[in-house]
Amino acid sequence: MTYCVGLRMNAGLVFLSDTRTNAGVDNISTFPKMNTWHIPGERMVTVLSAGNLATTQAVVSILDERVRCSGGTRPSIMEASSMFQIANMVGETLQSVIQQSAARSNLVASAFGATMIVGGQIIGSEPRVFLIYPEGNFIETSDDTPFFQIGETKYGRPMLVRAFDAHMSFEEAVKLLLVSFDSTVKANLSVGLPLDMQVYEADSFAIGRKFRMTQDDPYYQEISSGWGNSLRQAFADLTPFTFDKVQV
Amino acid sequence: MTYCVGLRMNAGLVFLSDTRTNAGVDNISTFPKMNTWHIPGERMVTVLSAGNLATTQAVVSILDERVRCSGGTRPSIMEASSMFQIANMVGETLQSVIQQSAARSNLVASAFGATMIVGGQIIGSEPRVFLIYPEGNFIETSDDTPFFQIGETKYGRPMLVRAFDAHMSFEEAVKLLLVSFDSTVKANLSVGLPLDMQVYEADSFAIGRKFRMTQDDPYYQEISSGWGNSLRQAFADLTPFTFDKVQV
Repeated sequence: MTYCVGLRMNAGLVFLSDTRTNAGVDNISTFPKMNTWHIPGERMVTVLSAGNLATTQAVVSILDERVRCSGGTRPSIMEASSMFQIANMVGETLQSVIQQSAARSNLVASAFGATMIVGGQIIGSEPRVFLIYPEGNFIETSDDTPFFQIGETKYGRPMLVRAFDAHMSFEEAVKLLLVSFDSTVKANLSVGLPLDMQVYEADSFAIGRKFRMTQDDPYYQEISSGWGNSLRQAFADLTPFTFDKVQV
Repeated sequence: MTYCVGLRMNAGLVFLSDTRTNAGVDNISTFPKMNTWHIPGERMVTVLSAGNLATTQAVVSILDERVRCSGGTRPSIMEASSMFQIANMVGETLQSVIQQSAARSNLVASAFGATMIVGGQIIGSEPRVFLIYPEGNFIETSDDTPFFQIGETKYGRPMLVRAFDAHMSFEEAVKLLLVSFDSTVKANLSVGLPLDMQVYEADSFAIGRKFRMTQDDPYYQEISSGWGNSLRQAFADLTPFTFDKVQV
């Protein structure tokens, strides 16, 4: 499994991805799931991926080949004139890789399934974030739903739903993502550190702040143990239950 | 979907189940998923169920018929000499109902799948809690894993993992289950109120405190809104992130 999140905030975009991949619990590896393309001053595009690793690596390689090889299918991520076009391109590529794998192997398409988050900004329009389905279609964030998660989304969702606010600072968003990530890691072996984060400031058209956190990062450790204590304290502070509150 | 939890504590057992069933999001009903049999002073057995409603209702009806009809298969839940025997009986019944439905319809067994939690106590032994799989086999709680969840388990799990302690009072356990339940309800439409709770005191061999909480229950409301505020406060109290904490 995997856990990735793309947040659209007033200040810009924040991306998080873990790096664990597994084929069964006895075959665990570390692969980055965050890929970024950019032209300084003009565009920044990040793709996060969850699902079949052969599928997602093929999609990223095809997107990258388009950029590198002058004779390939046009336009590439570097040339597309809108984020919508890029989402469309990623969706078509994803769907076609899945269909080819399924056709070759006579297995159902879901065996090769993957989901992607595409976020970024091209000069002249706002930052946008899309969630791409294995079928190649996609949805976009809105003010009501300003973030997408892919992979093992459930454990870390309650905290995002409760605390995320598009007006947050980047620092608060990073802290929130670490809390959400930590809940997921604690509950599911298939999500693991190190984790990759990217913080993109709107209208900067640069990669922005991109960093990796490992298990022994002092701040991660602090959040991980501190959040457990905070939760227990918050729980202790809630009004106690007594049986006279209900009809037994 | 469904959300049910069975906790084994030093003081006894606590059971929680929601009451929402759905066949698609446009076909939602309310059914109890908690069934209890008991002989005062001698035994108390509770079964929680998640999965295909036709399967789980058939299993409960078969178990109940054994109790009511003198000519049925023996022993019944009322006669079995141990909780292990009862877990075995529930497992066999569950597996056979699923197999029959699959055979009749030529569909795969998983289409009729269900999972159950069986907990209780028979005089002369300790309270025990089992998780029964659709295949009919089962596992039992231990000191390391003193609770089981079935149905939509993920959203409510982080808080249980962090805060549950077998030494808790019943009142604290009820509060904790409400917090775990509330996180699930907020994230998944297929889990809904009213919820049923049962608090069984070890060695009481009685049903104990069994009650239902509805959406407008004042204490539930207090936990539901209070927990959101507590979480946000706990989050605010965590050490702030600053970019100088990482190598960008």
